[in-house]
Amino acid sequence: MLVLITYDVNTETAAGRKRLHNVAKQCKNYGQRVQNSVFECILDAAKCREVQNKLEGIIDKKKDSLRFYYLGDNYRSKVEHIGAKPGVDIEGTLIL
Amino acid sequence: MLVLITYDVNTETAAGRKRLHNVAKQCKNYGQRVQNSVFECILDAAKCREVQNKLEGIIDKKKDSLRFYYLGDNYRSKVEHIGAKPGVDIEGTLIL
Repeated sequence: MLVLITYDVNTETAAGRKRLHNVAKQCKNYGQRVQNSVFECILDAAKCREVQNKLEGIIDKKKDSLRFYYLGDNYRSKVEHIGAKPGVDIEGTLIL
Repeated sequence: MLVLITYDVNTETAAGRKRLHNVAKQCKNYGQRVQNSVFECILDAAKCREVQNKLEGIIDKKKDSLRFYYLGDNYRSKVEHIGAKPGVDIEGTLIL
């Protein structure tokens, strides 16, 4: 299924900037960056839980947030892109 | 239906920062900010097209991007939030 991960990390401190770096780094292991703080990941339930646990362990829950959107298997018609940096479909073709 | 709007606006210039401000301002007219560059909007097809046109008119397509995710009507089970600033359900209750 397509899982969209969006995050807000408070970067007012050096520790926050490190968290942001680490969140992005982990997300890259699971999917495709489509915008600065937005990743699209094709995951099964186990992998999804895994990335959630990892990210949850990185963020400061009082300052940062994660959101997960579950778009199912038939996601191609559910995504639309306008403008720069079109997202690369992790399964091969461009989602434009 | 729930429409998720995410955006990346290049803020290297004053014009870019103005575009960012204007994109956020328009999005606020249509839905609920859940993260810095992420809005959740309950829209019918006409309103969705309307906000798309407005945002498309604001961004610089060579530098900025918009993404729209269509989560349908049964979206409550499709969204999960972890950490700070929980999103407010536009129809009343918190999506946590």
